[in-house]
Amino acid sequence: MHHVRFRDPAGAVRDGEYHGDEVSFGGRTYDIDDVEVLPPTDPTKVVCVGRNYAKHAEERGEDVPDRPLLFLKPPNAVTGPGATVTLPEGKYCEHEAELAVVIGKEAKNVDAENAEEYIAGYTVADDVSNRDDQDAEKNWVRGKAFDGACPLGPVLADPEHLPEDASISLRVNGETRQDSSIEHFIFEIPELVEEITSYLTLEPGDVVITGTPEGVNELTDGDRVEVEIEGVGTLEHTVERA
Amino acid sequence: MHHVRFRDPAGAVRDGEYHGDEVSFGGRTYDIDDVEVLPPTDPTKVVCVGRNYAKHAEERGEDVPDRPLLFLKPPNAVTGPGATVTLPEGKYCEHEAELAVVIGKEAKNVDAENAEEYIAGYTVADDVSNRDDQDAEKNWVRGKAFDGACPLGPVLADPEHLPEDASISLRVNGETRQDSSIEHFIFEIPELVEEITSYLTLEPGDVVITGTPEGVNELTDGDRVEVEIEGVGTLEHTVERA
Repeated sequence: MHHVRFRDPAGAVRDGEYHGDEVSFGGRTYDIDDVEVLPPTDPTKVVCVGRNYAKHAEERGEDVPDRPLLFLKPPNAVTGPGATVTLPEGKYCEHEAELAVVIGKEAKNVDAENAEEYIAGYTVADDVSNRDDQDAEKNWVRGKAFDGACPLGPVLADPEHLPEDASISLRVNGETRQDSSIEHFIFEIPELVEEITSYLTLEPGDVVITGTPEGVNELTDGDRVEVEIEGVGTLEHTVERA
Repeated sequence: MHHVRFRDPAGAVRDGEYHGDEVSFGGRTYDIDDVEVLPPTDPTKVVCVGRNYAKHAEERGEDVPDRPLLFLKPPNAVTGPGATVTLPEGKYCEHEAELAVVIGKEAKNVDAENAEEYIAGYTVADDVSNRDDQDAEKNWVRGKAFDGACPLGPVLADPEHLPEDASISLRVNGETRQDSSIEHFIFEIPELVEEITSYLTLEPGDVVITGTPEGVNELTDGDRVEVEIEGVGTLEHTVERA
Protein backbone atom coordinates (compact mmCIF):
# COMPACT_ATOMS: atom_id res chain seq x y z
CA MET A 1 0.00 0.00 0.00
CA HIS A 2 1.01 3.64 -0.55
CA HIS A 3 -0.10 5.80 2.38
CA VAL A 4 -0.76 9.52 2.09
CA ARG A 5 -1.30 12.15 4.78
CA PHE A 6 -3.63 14.88 3.63
CA ARG A 7 -5.90 17.63 4.84
CA ASP A 8 -9.41 16.95 3.54
CA PRO A 9 -11.70 19.70 2.20
CA ALA A 10 -13.18 20.09 5.72
CA GLY A 11 -9.72 20.72 7.18
CA ALA A 12 -9.16 17.38 8.96
CA VAL A 13 -5.75 15.67 8.69
CA ARG A 14 -6.17 12.09 7.44
CA ASP A 15 -3.85 9.12 7.07
CA GLY A 16 -5.30 7.71 3.89
CA GLU A 17 -4.50 5.63 0.84
CA TYR A 18 -2.92 6.94 -2.33
CA HIS A 19 -4.23 5.90 -5.74
CA GLY A 20 -2.44 8.28 -8.09
CA ASP A 21 -5.02 10.93 -9.03
CA GLU A 22 -7.17 10.10 -6.02
CA VAL A 23 -6.77 9.65 -2.27
CA SER A 24 -9.15 7.87 0.08
CA PHE A 25 -9.91 7.71 3.78
CA GLY A 26 -12.72 6.03 5.73
CA GLY A 27 -14.66 5.00 2.63
CA ARG A 28 -14.49 8.43 1.00
CA THR A 29 -12.46 9.20 -2.09
CA TYR A 30 -11.15 12.65 -3.08
CA ASP A 31 -9.58 14.01 -6.21
CA ILE A 32 -5.98 14.70 -5.23
CA ASP A 33 -6.34 18.28 -6.43
CA ASP A 34 -9.11 18.86 -3.86
CA VAL A 35 -6.93 18.04 -0.84
CA GLU A 36 -3.68 19.35 0.60
CA VAL A 37 -1.10 16.58 0.52
CA LEU A 38 1.11 16.81 3.63
CA PRO A 39 4.55 15.34 4.30
CA PRO A 40 3.87 11.63 4.86
CA THR A 41 5.29 11.84 8.38
CA ASP A 42 5.82 14.44 11.11
CA PRO A 43 9.30 13.58 12.39
CA THR A 44 11.01 14.83 15.54
CA LYS A 45 14.23 14.81 13.49
CA VAL A 46 15.63 13.85 10.10
CA VAL A 47 18.95 12.04 10.40
CA CYS A 48 20.86 12.51 7.15
CA VAL A 49 23.71 10.60 5.59
CA GLY A 50 26.33 12.39 3.48
CA ARG A 51 28.52 10.90 0.75
CA ASN A 52 26.72 7.56 0.57
CA TYR A 53 27.30 7.14 -3.16
CA ALA A 54 30.95 7.08 -4.26
CA LYS A 55 30.40 9.08 -7.46
CA HIS A 56 28.75 11.92 -5.52
CA ALA A 57 31.63 12.06 -3.03
CA GLU A 58 33.94 12.28 -6.04
CA GLU A 59 32.02 15.12 -7.73
CA ARG A 60 32.16 17.07 -4.45
CA GLY A 61 35.93 16.44 -4.26
CA GLU A 62 35.57 14.49 -1.01
CA ASP A 63 36.77 11.10 0.18
CA VAL A 64 34.35 8.25 0.76
CA PRO A 65 33.90 8.09 4.53
CA ASP A 66 34.93 5.01 6.52
CA ARG A 67 31.73 5.22 8.55
CA PRO A 68 28.47 7.02 7.75
CA LEU A 69 28.80 10.80 7.66
CA LEU A 70 25.78 11.94 9.71
CA PHE A 71 24.08 15.30 9.93
CA LEU A 72 20.67 16.59 11.09
CA LYS A 73 17.66 18.45 9.73
CA PRO A 74 15.16 19.60 12.37
CA PRO A 75 11.38 19.73 11.83
CA ASN A 76 11.50 23.29 10.45
CA ALA A 77 13.25 21.86 7.40
CA VAL A 78 10.44 19.44 6.54
CA THR A 79 7.93 20.52 3.94
CA GLY A 80 5.39 18.69 1.83
CA PRO A 81 5.02 17.73 -1.81
CA GLY A 82 4.14 20.70 -3.97
CA ALA A 83 5.89 23.12 -1.62
CA THR A 84 7.74 26.16 -2.80
CA VAL A 85 11.12 26.21 -1.06
CA THR A 86 12.57 29.66 -0.47
CA LEU A 87 16.32 29.48 -1.00
CA PRO A 88 18.55 31.33 1.49
CA GLU A 89 19.14 34.81 0.13
CA GLY A 90 22.07 35.14 -2.19
CA LYS A 91 23.35 31.60 -1.62
CA TYR A 92 24.32 29.06 -4.28
CA CYS A 93 21.98 26.08 -3.75
CA GLU A 94 21.74 22.57 -5.20
CA HIS A 95 19.28 19.67 -5.28
CA GLU A 96 20.04 16.22 -3.88
CA ALA A 97 17.66 13.33 -4.68
CA GLU A 98 17.42 10.91 -1.75
CA LEU A 99 15.56 7.83 -0.60
CA ALA A 100 13.96 8.49 2.81
CA VAL A 101 13.39 5.75 5.39
CA VAL A 102 10.46 6.30 7.79
CA ILE A 103 10.79 4.67 11.20
CA GLY A 104 7.84 2.63 12.47
CA LYS A 105 8.66 2.04 16.12
CA GLU A 106 11.08 3.34 18.73
CA ALA A 107 14.56 2.20 17.79
CA LYS A 108 17.65 2.19 20.03
CA ASN A 109 20.66 -0.12 19.79
CA VAL A 110 19.15 -1.99 16.84
CA ASP A 111 21.28 -4.68 15.16
CA ALA A 112 21.47 -4.40 11.38
CA GLU A 113 19.96 -7.86 11.03
CA ASN A 114 16.80 -6.70 12.85
CA ALA A 115 16.58 -3.24 11.28
CA GLU A 116 13.69 -4.11 8.94
CA GLU A 117 11.37 -4.53 11.93
CA TYR A 118 11.77 -0.83 12.69
CA ILE A 119 11.07 0.49 9.19
CA ALA A 120 7.51 1.63 8.42
CA GLY A 121 8.30 2.29 4.77
CA TYR A 122 9.92 4.66 2.32
CA THR A 123 9.36 8.08 0.86
CA VAL A 124 11.25 10.52 -1.35
CA ALA A 125 13.30 13.54 -0.30
CA ASP A 126 15.19 16.43 -1.79
CA ASP A 127 18.09 17.36 0.48
CA VAL A 128 18.15 20.99 -0.66
CA SER A 129 21.65 22.29 0.08
CA ASN A 130 23.05 25.79 0.41
CA ARG A 131 26.62 25.14 -0.68
CA ASP A 132 28.02 28.58 0.16
CA ASP A 133 27.33 28.04 3.85
CA GLN A 134 27.84 24.26 3.82
CA ASP A 135 31.36 24.72 2.51
CA ALA A 136 32.11 27.45 5.06
CA GLU A 137 30.72 26.01 8.28
CA LYS A 138 31.71 23.17 10.60
CA ASN A 139 28.22 21.77 11.14
CA TRP A 140 25.83 22.08 8.22
CA VAL A 141 23.11 24.15 9.90
CA ARG A 142 22.89 27.16 7.60
CA GLY A 143 23.78 24.81 4.75
CA LYS A 144 21.22 22.05 5.29
CA ALA A 145 18.78 22.87 8.13
CA PHE A 146 17.11 26.04 6.86
CA ASP A 147 13.31 26.22 6.59
CA GLY A 148 12.05 24.03 3.77
CA ALA A 149 15.39 22.30 3.15
CA CYS A 150 13.75 18.86 3.27
CA PRO A 151 10.75 18.39 0.95
CA LEU A 152 9.32 14.90 1.67
CA GLY A 153 6.64 12.82 -0.03
CA PRO A 154 4.23 12.35 -1.55
CA VAL A 155 3.60 8.91 -0.04
CA LEU A 156 4.82 6.42 2.50
CA ALA A 157 5.27 3.20 0.52
CA ASP A 158 5.16 -0.09 2.38
CA PRO A 159 8.61 -1.71 2.39
CA GLU A 160 7.78 -4.42 -0.16
CA HIS A 161 7.34 -1.80 -2.90
CA LEU A 162 11.02 -0.81 -2.93
CA PRO A 163 13.20 -2.94 -5.26
CA GLU A 164 16.72 -3.62 -3.96
CA ASP A 165 18.09 -1.89 -7.05
CA ALA A 166 15.44 0.84 -7.23
CA SER A 167 16.24 3.61 -9.67
CA ILE A 168 16.52 7.14 -8.26
CA SER A 169 16.37 10.14 -10.54
CA LEU A 170 15.83 13.87 -10.41
CA ARG A 171 14.62 16.28 -13.04
CA VAL A 172 14.69 20.07 -13.05
CA ASN A 173 12.14 21.65 -15.37
CA GLY A 174 11.84 18.25 -17.07
CA GLU A 175 15.58 17.79 -17.69
CA THR A 176 17.22 14.80 -16.01
CA ARG A 177 20.02 15.84 -13.65
CA GLN A 178 20.47 12.75 -11.46
CA ASP A 179 19.90 9.16 -12.58
CA SER A 180 21.25 6.26 -10.55
CA SER A 181 20.17 3.34 -8.37
CA ILE A 182 20.17 2.67 -4.66
CA GLU A 183 22.27 -0.41 -5.40
CA HIS A 184 25.22 2.03 -5.30
CA PHE A 185 24.80 2.82 -1.60
CA ILE A 186 28.10 2.64 0.25
CA PHE A 187 26.33 1.95 3.56
CA GLU A 188 23.11 -0.10 3.28
CA ILE A 189 20.01 0.92 5.22
CA PRO A 190 20.32 -1.75 7.97
CA GLU A 191 23.89 -0.63 8.68
CA LEU A 192 22.71 3.00 8.86
CA VAL A 193 19.96 2.11 11.35
CA GLU A 194 22.44 0.18 13.49
CA GLU A 195 24.99 2.98 13.48
CA ILE A 196 22.50 5.80 14.16
CA THR A 197 20.64 3.95 16.92
CA SER A 198 23.87 3.12 18.71
CA TYR A 199 23.87 6.83 19.64
CA LEU A 200 20.35 8.25 19.08
CA THR A 201 16.86 6.87 19.68
CA LEU A 202 14.83 7.02 16.48
CA GLU A 203 11.16 7.72 17.27
CA PRO A 204 8.17 6.49 15.26
CA GLY A 205 7.83 8.86 12.32
CA ASP A 206 11.47 9.91 12.35
CA VAL A 207 13.24 9.90 9.00
CA VAL A 208 16.65 8.77 7.79
CA ILE A 209 17.69 10.15 4.41
CA THR A 210 20.27 8.02 2.73
CA GLY A 211 22.51 10.23 0.61
CA THR A 212 22.41 11.38 -2.97
CA PRO A 213 23.93 10.00 -6.17
CA GLU A 214 26.03 12.05 -8.58
CA GLY A 215 24.57 14.83 -10.71
CA VAL A 216 23.80 17.48 -8.09
CA ASN A 217 23.47 20.89 -9.68
CA GLU A 218 22.25 24.45 -9.24
CA LEU A 219 18.72 25.46 -8.34
CA THR A 220 17.46 28.85 -9.44
CA ASP A 221 14.33 30.93 -8.99
CA GLY A 222 11.24 29.21 -10.35
CA ASP A 223 12.79 25.78 -10.91
CA ARG A 224 10.40 22.83 -10.77
CA VAL A 225 12.01 19.74 -9.24
CA GLU A 226 10.80 16.14 -9.56
CA VAL A 227 12.49 13.34 -7.61
CA GLU A 228 11.43 9.85 -8.63
CA ILE A 229 12.20 6.59 -6.86
CA GLU A 230 11.10 3.33 -8.42
CA GLY A 231 8.32 1.67 -6.46
CA VAL A 232 7.89 4.63 -4.11
CA GLY A 233 6.75 7.66 -6.11
CA THR A 234 7.60 11.08 -7.43
CA LEU A 235 8.08 14.11 -5.19
CA GLU A 236 7.52 17.46 -6.86
CA HIS A 237 8.39 20.89 -5.52
CA THR A 238 9.46 24.28 -6.75
CA VAL A 239 12.02 26.78 -5.53
CA GLU A 240 12.06 30.55 -5.32
CA ARG A 241 14.45 33.28 -4.36
CA ALA A 242 13.39 35.43 -1.41
CA MET B 1 8.77 34.07 38.45
CA HIS B 2 10.54 30.73 38.13
CA HIS B 3 8.38 28.24 36.22
CA VAL B 4 8.70 24.49 36.64
CA ARG B 5 7.21 21.65 34.58
CA PHE B 6 6.51 18.61 36.70
CA ARG B 7 4.53 15.41 36.86
CA ASP B 8 2.32 15.51 39.95
CA PRO B 9 1.78 12.48 42.19
CA ALA B 10 -1.35 11.59 40.15
CA GLY B 11 0.73 11.53 36.93
CA ALA B 12 -0.48 14.78 35.34
CA VAL B 13 2.07 17.11 33.72
CA ARG B 14 1.80 20.61 35.19
CA ASP B 15 3.31 24.01 34.35
CA GLY B 16 3.71 25.31 37.84
CA GLU B 17 5.71 27.68 40.02
CA TYR B 18 9.02 26.88 41.64
CA HIS B 19 9.71 27.84 45.24
CA GLY B 20 12.94 25.97 45.98
CA ASP B 21 11.92 22.96 48.06
CA GLU B 22 8.31 23.18 46.89
CA VAL B 23 6.41 23.51 43.63
CA SER B 24 2.84 24.67 43.17
CA PHE B 25 0.09 24.47 40.59
CA GLY B 26 -3.57 25.47 40.69
CA GLY B 27 -3.56 26.32 44.39
CA ARG B 28 -1.84 23.06 45.42
CA THR B 29 1.70 22.87 46.75
CA TYR B 30 3.92 19.80 46.62
CA ASP B 31 7.23 18.94 48.19
CA ILE B 32 9.68 18.87 45.29
CA ASP B 33 10.72 15.34 46.27
CA ASP B 34 7.15 14.13 45.72
CA VAL B 35 7.01 15.15 42.05
CA GLU B 36 9.03 14.38 38.93
CA VAL B 37 10.62 17.59 37.69
CA LEU B 38 10.66 17.58 33.87
CA PRO B 39 12.75 19.62 31.44
CA PRO B 40 11.20 23.11 31.59
CA THR B 41 10.37 22.97 27.87
CA ASP B 42 9.72 20.35 25.21
CA PRO B 43 11.59 21.76 22.21
CA THR B 44 11.39 20.66 18.57
CA LYS B 45 15.14 21.40 18.42
CA VAL B 46 18.00 22.79 20.44
CA VAL B 47 20.16 25.15 18.41
CA CYS B 48 23.62 25.23 19.92
CA VAL B 49 26.46 27.71 19.69
CA GLY B 50 30.07 26.56 19.82
CA ARG B 51 33.12 28.57 20.90
CA ASN B 52 31.18 31.54 22.26
CA TYR B 53 33.72 32.29 25.00
CA ALA B 54 37.25 33.06 23.81
CA LYS B 55 39.01 31.18 26.62
CA HIS B 56 37.09 27.99 25.82
CA ALA B 57 38.00 28.20 22.12
CA GLU B 58 41.60 28.60 23.27
CA GLU B 59 41.56 25.56 25.58
CA ARG B 60 40.14 23.47 22.71
CA GLY B 61 42.92 24.75 20.43
CA GLU B 62 40.43 26.42 18.08
CA ASP B 63 40.09 29.89 16.63
CA VAL B 64 37.31 32.22 17.70
CA PRO B 65 34.74 32.07 14.88
CA ASP B 66 33.89 35.19 12.85
CA ARG B 67 30.19 34.28 12.98
CA PRO B 68 28.37 31.97 15.41
CA LEU B 69 29.38 28.32 15.08
CA LEU B 70 26.01 26.54 15.06
CA PHE B 71 25.12 22.91 15.65
CA LEU B 72 21.98 20.97 16.59
CA LYS B 73 20.69 18.68 19.31
CA PRO B 74 17.40 16.93 18.53
CA PRO B 75 14.70 16.15 21.13
CA ASN B 76 16.23 12.74 21.98
CA ALA B 77 19.13 14.65 23.55
CA VAL B 78 16.93 16.56 26.01
CA THR B 79 16.59 15.19 29.50
CA GLY B 80 15.44 16.64 32.79
CA PRO B 81 17.05 17.73 36.03
CA GLY B 82 18.14 14.78 38.13
CA ALA B 83 18.63 12.59 35.06
CA THR B 84 21.36 10.01 34.81
CA VAL B 85 23.06 10.49 31.43
CA THR B 86 24.52 7.32 29.94
CA LEU B 87 27.78 8.22 28.23
CA PRO B 88 28.48 6.66 24.80
CA GLU B 89 30.35 3.42 25.38
CA GLY B 90 34.11 3.76 25.58
CA LYS B 91 34.14 7.45 24.59
CA TYR B 92 35.96 10.28 26.35
CA CYS B 93 33.25 12.75 27.44
CA GLU B 94 33.25 16.23 28.95
CA HIS B 95 30.79 18.63 30.61
CA GLU B 96 29.96 22.09 29.22
CA ALA B 97 27.99 24.52 31.40
CA GLU B 98 25.69 26.69 29.28
CA LEU B 99 22.97 29.29 29.58
CA ALA B 100 19.86 28.15 27.66
CA VAL B 101 17.44 30.59 26.04
CA VAL B 102 13.82 29.38 25.74
CA ILE B 103 11.83 30.83 22.85
CA GLY B 104 8.36 32.21 23.62
CA LYS B 105 6.83 32.75 20.19
CA GLU B 106 7.51 31.77 16.60
CA ALA B 107 10.62 33.58 15.44
CA LYS B 108 11.80 34.01 11.84
CA ASN B 109 13.93 36.83 10.46
CA VAL B 110 14.07 38.58 13.83
CA ASP B 111 16.24 41.70 14.14
CA ALA B 112 18.60 41.69 17.11
CA GLU B 113 16.97 44.83 18.45
CA ASN B 114 13.62 43.00 18.72
CA ALA B 115 14.96 39.65 19.93
CA GLU B 116 13.84 40.11 23.54
CA GLU B 117 10.20 39.94 22.46
CA TYR B 118 10.76 36.32 21.39
CA ILE B 119 12.43 35.11 24.59
CA ALA B 120 10.24 33.38 27.18
CA GLY B 121 13.08 33.09 29.66
CA TYR B 122 16.21 31.22 30.62
CA THR B 123 17.22 27.84 31.93
CA VAL B 124 20.44 25.92 32.53
CA ALA B 125 22.04 23.28 30.29
CA ASP B 126 24.94 20.87 30.28
CA ASP B 127 26.12 20.35 26.69
CA VAL B 128 27.50 16.87 27.39
CA SER B 129 30.10 16.20 24.70
CA ASN B 130 31.68 12.99 23.43
CA ARG B 131 35.03 14.35 22.29
CA ASP B 132 36.29 11.17 20.61
CA ASP B 133 33.54 11.36 18.02
CA GLN B 134 33.27 15.15 17.99
CA ASP B 135 36.92 15.44 17.01
CA ALA B 136 36.55 12.72 14.33
CA GLU B 137 33.33 13.71 12.58
CA LYS B 138 32.29 16.55 10.28
CA ASN B 139 28.93 17.25 11.92
CA TRP B 140 28.75 16.68 15.67
CA VAL B 141 25.99 14.06 15.73
CA ARG B 142 27.67 11.19 17.56
CA GLY B 143 29.61 13.83 19.51
CA LYS B 144 26.74 16.03 20.70
CA ALA B 145 23.31 14.60 19.73
CA PHE B 146 23.27 11.27 21.55
CA ASP B 147 20.43 10.41 23.93
CA GLY B 148 20.64 12.51 27.09
CA ALA B 149 23.34 14.86 25.78
CA CYS B 150 21.33 17.93 26.82
CA PRO B 151 20.18 17.97 30.45
CA LEU B 152 17.99 21.08 30.90
CA GLY B 153 16.43 22.72 33.91
CA PRO B 154 15.28 22.84 36.59
CA VAL B 155 13.28 26.01 35.92
CA LEU B 156 12.36 28.53 33.28
CA ALA B 157 13.26 31.89 34.83
CA ASP B 158 11.50 35.00 33.55
CA PRO B 159 13.96 37.23 31.68
CA GLU B 160 14.25 39.87 34.40
CA HIS B 161 15.95 37.39 36.73
CA LEU B 162 19.10 37.10 34.60
CA PRO B 163 21.77 39.73 35.37
CA GLU B 164 23.73 40.94 32.33
CA ASP B 165 26.90 39.69 33.97
CA ALA B 166 25.38 36.52 35.48
CA SER B 167 27.94 34.11 36.88
CA ILE B 168 27.99 30.61 35.35
CA SER B 169 29.72 27.78 37.13
CA LEU B 170 29.91 24.00 37.11
CA ARG B 171 30.89 21.58 39.83
CA VAL B 172 31.63 17.87 39.56
CA ASN B 173 31.22 16.00 42.84
CA GLY B 174 31.35 19.35 44.60
CA GLU B 175 34.59 20.53 42.99
CA THR B 176 34.40 23.67 40.85
CA ARG B 177 35.48 23.03 37.26
CA GLN B 178 34.02 26.01 35.37
CA ASP B 179 33.54 29.49 36.83
CA SER B 180 32.93 32.47 34.57
CA SER B 181 30.29 35.00 33.57
CA ILE B 182 28.04 35.44 30.56
CA GLU B 183 29.58 38.89 30.15
CA HIS B 184 32.32 37.03 28.24
CA PHE B 185 30.02 35.96 25.40
CA ILE B 186 31.57 36.63 22.01
CA PHE B 187 28.13 36.81 20.35
CA GLU B 188 25.35 38.23 22.54
CA ILE B 189 21.93 36.56 22.68
CA PRO B 190 20.12 39.08 20.41
CA GLU B 191 22.79 38.56 17.72
CA LEU B 192 22.39 34.80 18.03
CA VAL B 193 18.62 35.03 17.64
CA GLU B 194 19.02 37.24 14.57
CA GLU B 195 21.57 34.96 12.94
CA ILE B 196 19.70 31.70 13.66
CA THR B 197 16.31 33.02 12.57
CA SER B 198 17.71 34.33 9.31
CA TYR B 199 17.84 30.62 8.33
CA LEU B 200 15.62 28.63 10.71
CA THR B 201 12.25 29.30 12.32
CA LEU B 202 12.46 28.98 16.08
CA GLU B 203 9.21 27.57 17.49
CA PRO B 204 7.75 28.33 20.93
CA GLY B 205 9.60 26.11 23.38
CA ASP B 206 12.69 25.76 21.21
CA VAL B 207 16.00 26.29 22.93
CA VAL B 208 19.22 28.10 22.04
CA ILE B 209 22.23 27.14 24.15
CA THR B 210 24.87 29.79 24.17
CA GLY B 211 28.27 28.14 24.47
CA THR B 212 30.45 27.22 27.41
CA PRO B 213 33.25 29.03 29.22
CA GLU B 214 36.69 27.54 29.88
CA GLY B 215 37.23 24.65 32.30
CA VAL B 216 35.62 21.76 30.43
CA ASN B 217 36.90 18.44 31.73
CA GLU B 218 36.32 14.72 31.87
CA LEU B 219 33.16 13.03 33.08
CA THR B 220 33.40 9.53 34.51
CA ASP B 221 31.02 6.89 35.82
CA GLY B 222 29.02 8.09 38.82
CA ASP B 223 29.95 11.77 38.57
CA ARG B 224 27.43 14.22 39.99
CA VAL B 225 27.26 17.48 38.00
CA GLU B 226 25.82 20.81 39.15
CA VAL B 227 25.54 23.75 36.77
CA GLU B 228 24.63 27.04 38.41
CA ILE B 229 23.64 30.27 36.70
CA GLU B 230 23.06 33.37 38.81
CA GLY B 231 19.40 34.37 38.88
CA VAL B 232 18.26 31.25 37.05
CA GLY B 233 19.05 28.19 39.14
CA THR B 234 21.11 25.05 39.55
CA LEU B 235 20.78 22.05 37.26
CA GLU B 236 21.90 18.74 38.74
CA HIS B 237 22.44 15.46 36.95
CA THR B 238 24.64 12.40 37.17
CA VAL B 239 26.43 10.35 34.54
CA GLU B 240 27.04 6.65 34.14
CA ARG B 241 28.91 4.35 31.83
CA ALA B 242 26.75 1.84 29.89
